[in-house]
Amino acid sequence: MEDALDANNTIARANRDDFDRQGVTVVNLMSAPGAGKTSLLERALADLDGVRAGVLEGDVQGRVDADRIAALHLPVVQIDTGHGFGGECHLDANMVRSAIPSLPLDELDLLVIENVGNLVCPAEFRVGEDHRIMVSSVAEGEDKPLKYPLMFRACELVLVNKVDLLPHLDFDLDKFLYHLEAVHPGVERMLVSARTGEGIDEWRSWLQRAATRELAPA
Amino acid sequence: MEDALDANNTIARANRDDFDRQGVTVVNLMSAPGAGKTSLLERALADLDGVRAGVLEGDVQGRVDADRIAALHLPVVQIDTGHGFGGECHLDANMVRSAIPSLPLDELDLLVIENVGNLVCPAEFRVGEDHRIMVSSVAEGEDKPLKYPLMFRACELVLVNKVDLLPHLDFDLDKFLYHLEAVHPGVERMLVSARTGEGIDEWRSWLQRAATRELAPA
Repeated sequence: MEDALDANNTIARANRDDFDRQGVTVVNLMSAPGAGKTSLLERALADLDGVRAGVLEGDVQGRVDADRIAALHLPVVQIDTGHGFGGECHLDANMVRSAIPSLPLDELDLLVIENVGNLVCPAEFRVGEDHRIMVSSVAEGEDKPLKYPLMFRACELVLVNKVDLLPHLDFDLDKFLYHLEAVHPGVERMLVSARTGEGIDEWRSWLQRAATRELAPA
Repeated sequence: MEDALDANNTIARANRDDFDRQGVTVVNLMSAPGAGKTSLLERALADLDGVRAGVLEGDVQGRVDADRIAALHLPVVQIDTGHGFGGECHLDANMVRSAIPSLPLDELDLLVIENVGNLVCPAEFRVGEDHRIMVSSVAEGEDKPLKYPLMFRACELVLVNKVDLLPHLDFDLDKFLYHLEAVHPGVERMLVSARTGEGIDEWRSWLQRAATRELAPA
């Protein structure tokens, strides 16, 4: 397992070198299934000002998310971990490497890699990204940082999504933030709702600052 | 990978023989993180009539769920995949085998194995169960059967949870059920809410029929 992670890190560094050479900032976006990664991307990428963005979609199967992004007229490449990669539950550096030739890197400032929906393994596999972001939906419950600490620790920004549902849930936001602070002290967090648009400007602005390197790569 | 699955199946069969010998019906309960497995178990197991139930809790880390079940005064054993098993994203037959000596099998009619929250790998690893059930929360979106077909196909019962949230979501229930039927024709499904209690009697009755072998093992 450690050998596999070492090999992965070597390829991840090669990916990052390629991205750096082309001046592309790369964000690895992770979450549990159905937390809202694609919806948050649709919201933010539709109005990115002066930033040329593309998306790499990781899924076990299907093009549902890729088709949603393509509808925004943005370059999108699908990695299907179920075909050729044995149904993997995460992206790894080699899968991303295999997709690089299909990406118009010289036309991009920002590449978002939407990982497979999973709170465990994606945290262990770097893919050559500059930034790691996770989405945690309030519908998932306030105990998630305690149960998946590696994922919450791996990320520099946590998007707390679906906050429009808070009045209809028994979710205790203070308790969630307390747990989050316990496993990753000082981590940046934003309360957002892809449905109502709450917090989306702040999230889009974060991506813009990352793309222009105003935010230093982690 | 195929060798690993073969080895897993061999151990799973040994587990099932042990469970059969003691007359224990075993249910493998799976879902994405935060879909509500533990809450649905709390609801159903608290009032199981004439059935002696126990729970095996699989988590990457922590005893949050095990403590919730223990509060019901039911036997519960924790498998921590983060310690001794390398942070696995699923339970396998060997992890369950290692827990068997800690389980009071001769005092149980029903053992529920709550798997790690993950829609990918748990579907590939049998652990010696008679039945596989999954929980899918309506907050996760109606595309989930298309994106995780193996999981939806692996289960004989799908609990569609958090239906109390339907008025507050853009979730199209008919579309979800259509996708579900497309990937697993005829699969049994129940609309439930751990929060309001909707559908819980039906779910509890299913477990009771499984425990008394009125429902044949799959």
